[in-house]
Amino acid sequence: MATTIIFNACIITMNEGMEVIKNGSIRVEDNQIKEIREGKIESPDAEYFDAEGMIVMPGFINTHTHVPMTMLRGYADDLPLHTWLNEHIFPAEARMVTPENVAVAARFAFIEMIKSGTTCFNDMYFFEDIIASEAKKAGIRAVVGESLIDFPTPSFHTVDEGVARCESLVQQWYGDSLIHPTICAHSPYTCSKETLQKAKILSEKYNIPLHIHVAETRKEVEDLTSQTGMAPAEYLYSIGLLDRNVIAAHSVWLNLKEIELYARTRTSVAHCPKSNLKLASGIADTDTYMKAGINVSIGTDGTASNNTLDMVEEMRFAALLPKGSLHNPEAVNARTALRMATINGAKALGIHHLTGSLEVGKRADLIVIHADASNMLPIYDVYSAIVYASNSKNIRSSMVNGKWIMRNRELMNINKTETMESMKHIVNSQIDNRK
Amino acid sequence: MATTIIFNACIITMNEGMEVIKNGSIRVEDNQIKEIREGKIESPDAEYFDAEGMIVMPGFINTHTHVPMTMLRGYADDLPLHTWLNEHIFPAEARMVTPENVAVAARFAFIEMIKSGTTCFNDMYFFEDIIASEAKKAGIRAVVGESLIDFPTPSFHTVDEGVARCESLVQQWYGDSLIHPTICAHSPYTCSKETLQKAKILSEKYNIPLHIHVAETRKEVEDLTSQTGMAPAEYLYSIGLLDRNVIAAHSVWLNLKEIELYARTRTSVAHCPKSNLKLASGIADTDTYMKAGINVSIGTDGTASNNTLDMVEEMRFAALLPKGSLHNPEAVNARTALRMATINGAKALGIHHLTGSLEVGKRADLIVIHADASNMLPIYDVYSAIVYASNSKNIRSSMVNGKWIMRNRELMNINKTETMESMKHIVNSQIDNRK
Repeated sequence: MATTIIFNACIITMNEGMEVIKNGSIRVEDNQIKEIREGKIESPDAEYFDAEGMIVMPGFINTHTHVPMTMLRGYADDLPLHTWLNEHIFPAEARMVTPENVAVAARFAFIEMIKSGTTCFNDMYFFEDIIASEAKKAGIRAVVGESLIDFPTPSFHTVDEGVARCESLVQQWYGDSLIHPTICAHSPYTCSKETLQKAKILSEKYNIPLHIHVAETRKEVEDLTSQTGMAPAEYLYSIGLLDRNVIAAHSVWLNLKEIELYARTRTSVAHCPKSNLKLASGIADTDTYMKAGINVSIGTDGTASNNTLDMVEEMRFAALLPKGSLHNPEAVNARTALRMATINGAKALGIHHLTGSLEVGKRADLIVIHADASNMLPIYDVYSAIVYASNSKNIRSSMVNGKWIMRNRELMNINKTETMESMKHIVNSQIDNRK
Repeated sequence: MATTIIFNACIITMNEGMEVIKNGSIRVEDNQIKEIREGKIESPDAEYFDAEGMIVMPGFINTHTHVPMTMLRGYADDLPLHTWLNEHIFPAEARMVTPENVAVAARFAFIEMIKSGTTCFNDMYFFEDIIASEAKKAGIRAVVGESLIDFPTPSFHTVDEGVARCESLVQQWYGDSLIHPTICAHSPYTCSKETLQKAKILSEKYNIPLHIHVAETRKEVEDLTSQTGMAPAEYLYSIGLLDRNVIAAHSVWLNLKEIELYARTRTSVAHCPKSNLKLASGIADTDTYMKAGINVSIGTDGTASNNTLDMVEEMRFAALLPKGSLHNPEAVNARTALRMATINGAKALGIHHLTGSLEVGKRADLIVIHADASNMLPIYDVYSAIVYASNSKNIRSSMVNGKWIMRNRELMNINKTETMESMKHIVNSQIDNRK
């Protein structure tokens, strides 16, 4: 039985009482947190980790991304959504999304994610079996679902093939300690009612999350309303889709009725502030959503529309945007933003019994932040310091499921040089293709 | 004559033609750029700097800040502006703003600024003579002005004393190669017409910038309109204040007439997107401002309202916010954002003959960005990579006035450990006072 004791830490638990222990210890046995308290815990044969000058908190949970899109970071920027998607991203994906490239691009994404404090991500893409395997090797917690969509994709040709791929992914990973399968339906505007309902049946059969893009743009709302007479979330509700297993990405344009529907059905939002800005989708009114009782978490989206996988930065946008857009400096305060980036994400993904806060009995998914840094001092309030002042380079070490996956900025399970070289090789071939 | 040759660099010149040299060299002699071209420049006795895998570009110009407010980073967050200012910031400043503390806090700010790529900043605070001396020692380019305001400050008691301090600062530094004096008037709502006109006279006498907060909040606009019948910029124009020497910080709430006045008088805007969000002031419509012909630059504001001095992050907000708030993905593209953060800043401060772009004859104020990094690759477009993907830790080295002030993340002229200890000492006394 491996025991690790982290001591001398300022521990932000993110538990219900938002307890902060100024100088405390955490005892981790195997993959679980066994004890948290003030002072130093002594235990024979333990590995000790001195966290002096450090903040220890739950790792960030990125609740909406498409990790292999690292291949397409900066591929086509400053363009309208439809030009971007149809003229640039879709054609590039048709050429580039192969099992081999997805493996490299996922590994490459994990480097940036781990280095910026993410311990768990929720992915929707193609070849998710490969992403799951790569995540398992990297030691990062992954929530994975093959994306169902009504047209041929790089990984399946018909919806029925897609459904089969989804279910086989679920069966492969169901019950794993690190990889959590989900069902993904791309969106109400790219999936027929039948496809959405097939997704729902799978989500119910296994009682696992259903991950979907909803109400990302005004155009989507207008189109769907003219087709069905209902706004996107109303439509999804009408076909029985919304419940506590649903994680709805973006959800920028919810009307009051839809906000009430999300709250009542316990549908969660994966808020992607930077992608929504960059693609000019808009600014989601997350303050109102949360006040109405919706669980709002944070996602980066893919690097083709962000262009980072940095949850520190994403959290900062999530905290600052509502203040400016609502003209209310008290909207989404530092504590709320940190909840969005941690425990709310775990709730959205149905894994809050495992992760999202530092509590006895949960898995040890945590990050160590070097707070004695020139960009973070002074620290009058730890939540403010993290949300408004920290950046990815302050994150020094990271543990997932009781194992260190980064120590003092060194990745434990990924060969960074080799992965970067492989990514450059993919990109160079692509640039040659594009000429 | 000291010669430095930077070679193997991807050089972003930010000159009028936005020239990019994919593999080039820069020859610096003493404080000037003497040659820029493709390939390697050979010169006997030169110091060579190999920039393989690096982007070399002009350093960032932070056109609005209050550097000693590093003492108050995170001191009071998530509060309405007036509570924040009157109940927290002003009382703390009355206790903390001493010459000794300002020296430490400025040095501390320079650490963060240099590490995030700033080579020049425009400051408005008290004891600016001390800030100027500290900047000179640190080797960072500084534009400094003592803040005129109609009530007693830590550095003067009456406006006339303040004017005398302003002028003595100008006389002390006028013509210096690194420190550029300006005149600061705090704002139209804290300075009488007489005070503003005294500031203007000094700005005209020495032909140097007049730095002022304008139209930061709706309340300011409403109050001034009810007092004078004019919006802030209209009022300033009516008393003869606006011209090409004026750098107007914030300018969130300009009406169409004021936009036209700024453009016609060549008044520059120092846009502070993060501070404007955090204090719930609003989102300035910089896209419209620039289309109307206004020179818009970027500032961080002080760390009490941001809470960083990181121009990479500030530029990212400046690029992303207009897209989301205007629902236009083509608003403020990557090239425009990089101009705002560099050459537009130099123009705003009237020092574009010296800095803001890499051109023969200008001072060598440049930064070296490690672009071969897991958060920046792939690089399909260098502007996109810098604006949307880079972060402060990618900035490895920095040169100002021909001298390296940071090499491979090591500061050359500031004792980081000592400065951080001094800052902690100030903060600890403050926390003791507050109890």
